[in-house]
Amino acid sequence: MKKKIHNSQITEKIIINSYLKKLNFDKKGTFNFENDAAYIQTLKNKKIVITTDSISEKIDFFKFDNPKSIANKIIAVNLSDLSAMGAYPFAYSLNLFLPVYVNRDWLKNFTNELYRLQRKYNFYLIGGDISKSKILSISATFFGNVKNNKVVTQSSLGLNKDIWVTGNIGDSYIGLKILKKKINLNNKKLNKYFINKYYFPKHSSIGPKISKLASSIKDISDGLIGDLKKMLTKNGAIIDLSKIPISKNLEIIIKNKKMKLKNILNSGDDYELIIISNRDFRNQIISIAKNNKTKITLIGKTIKKNGIFLDSNHSYNIPREFDHFS
Amino acid sequence: MKKKIHNSQITEKIIINSYLKKLNFDKKGTFNFENDAAYIQTLKNKKIVITTDSISEKIDFFKFDNPKSIANKIIAVNLSDLSAMGAYPFAYSLNLFLPVYVNRDWLKNFTNELYRLQRKYNFYLIGGDISKSKILSISATFFGNVKNNKVVTQSSLGLNKDIWVTGNIGDSYIGLKILKKKINLNNKKLNKYFINKYYFPKHSSIGPKISKLASSIKDISDGLIGDLKKMLTKNGAIIDLSKIPISKNLEIIIKNKKMKLKNILNSGDDYELIIISNRDFRNQIISIAKNNKTKITLIGKTIKKNGIFLDSNHSYNIPREFDHFS
Repeated sequence: MKKKIHNSQITEKIIINSYLKKLNFDKKGTFNFENDAAYIQTLKNKKIVITTDSISEKIDFFKFDNPKSIANKIIAVNLSDLSAMGAYPFAYSLNLFLPVYVNRDWLKNFTNELYRLQRKYNFYLIGGDISKSKILSISATFFGNVKNNKVVTQSSLGLNKDIWVTGNIGDSYIGLKILKKKINLNNKKLNKYFINKYYFPKHSSIGPKISKLASSIKDISDGLIGDLKKMLTKNGAIIDLSKIPISKNLEIIIKNKKMKLKNILNSGDDYELIIISNRDFRNQIISIAKNNKTKITLIGKTIKKNGIFLDSNHSYNIPREFDHFS
Repeated sequence: MKKKIHNSQITEKIIINSYLKKLNFDKKGTFNFENDAAYIQTLKNKKIVITTDSISEKIDFFKFDNPKSIANKIIAVNLSDLSAMGAYPFAYSLNLFLPVYVNRDWLKNFTNELYRLQRKYNFYLIGGDISKSKILSISATFFGNVKNNKVVTQSSLGLNKDIWVTGNIGDSYIGLKILKKKINLNNKKLNKYFINKYYFPKHSSIGPKISKLASSIKDISDGLIGDLKKMLTKNGAIIDLSKIPISKNLEIIIKNKKMKLKNILNSGDDYELIIISNRDFRNQIISIAKNNKTKITLIGKTIKKNGIFLDSNHSYNIPREFDHFS
């Protein structure tokens, strides 16, 4: 179950634990609402993975954003959940809450982009509903298949396991900061690069290819540290700061002190995957990533001590200095 | 696919036909978006029926409505779609868009009512997401099973078929009119009766029990005539006005000329079912309805001539006077 609400009176944890949990009737496929997706067991050896996510004007995108960008977001946010479960998408339904400014041009651009993404990742629209609304909101519910009946969960157990991350992180977060005028790069080309990363997120689709080697996988929708924390319910982790994969453009920003690496770790919708796996699979994982033209980086390991510790001495194997990230 | 948008520039038909239809990749289970639900074929002889529907503040309910009423609405609107497909619900996911006024009391009442309905109809919550929002909106996606692999469609073909309707119609519509101060009954007990029918809709759950005898079934979410029109894409129908099933309280209202029967036929969320079936099954249908303690009424038949004709001479078999309802 995904949660994005922040309210002084009532947190997402309270809503889920105090009110919603009773509604899952203890069914295994709901993962007690601790995962971002669930499954339905259709036969003894057949599961359909289901995830649902919503995006809203002012929260997940700006009013009058390019409808192509909005199409990319509603797809990326859901496909990255399926990927983290080790599932391939095959169908989805859409709930459209449309304000009056949505016209034919908007619909054309929005649905053409959906069509392009459907063709690319091979899934179809099964149905949905359309309501009028004051603000634009979109919910999508996605259906996925898993091979060999393996559904990966998010909760990681076990020590000394490898922590990997796919792609680069942080670019989309910088794009958002630029749009919100929180930072100014004074560089048109760089601005354009980061803003584009914010507007057109791409999920990492390697989940189902790597799932058989993973103890757990989660997509990053709440910053690397935030999502890693959610995975490590009983253990902790050491992360080697020097290994965090960032783009060359983000390296420039950090060098110019426009942004600290640590801030990037705790924010942003990257839609990349955190993969926790046994050390024995190291070479196999690197080889699968290479075959799928996916960047993958070993950034740390799980440890017994609770919390996430940033190793700032670049000494992944024997960290000397711990920096507790809270 | 459900549609509730009305906008001078762009209609729901335009949105579906011009923009969304290309996204179904011609999959059979989508019914070309002409049904209120769809299915996924999981095996040669196994289908999962899927429907999704949203409700929003100011459109489907009033601000600060009782959360128990809102819970009833999001369930009724979806379960009546499943029932019309001949499916039993087994699971659902929820997308909650919650404004700040949603507090612990609200959540308790809302989820306790969901729990009660889940127990009653035997389905569980599989997952969902929570977002903050300025207005309260809820989407739900429901999953259903069909027996003998039979999924009923909405489009009816064939002449001289029986047209049935379950339960009574119009009560909820009167309740809404009272709340909107469009009519005044000057009778506390009657007011309460109709308002309660608006706040706590019950779907007709007889769909899966009667589906094997039906050519087509549809739930009433747009008035009896509106929904019947959607079923009769190639034919027409004669409806015997005197047979329209209404409650005793609604009879009083009509007698007192507070409302015309014809107005009721074209409005209202009744969540009852329109069932079109072969005349040969008449006795069987009456017997199934009786066994399930469901009121069912034969109100007309399909005819070749396009349009829906109201027979005001109470002569169902040989109608003499036609009144074209447009």
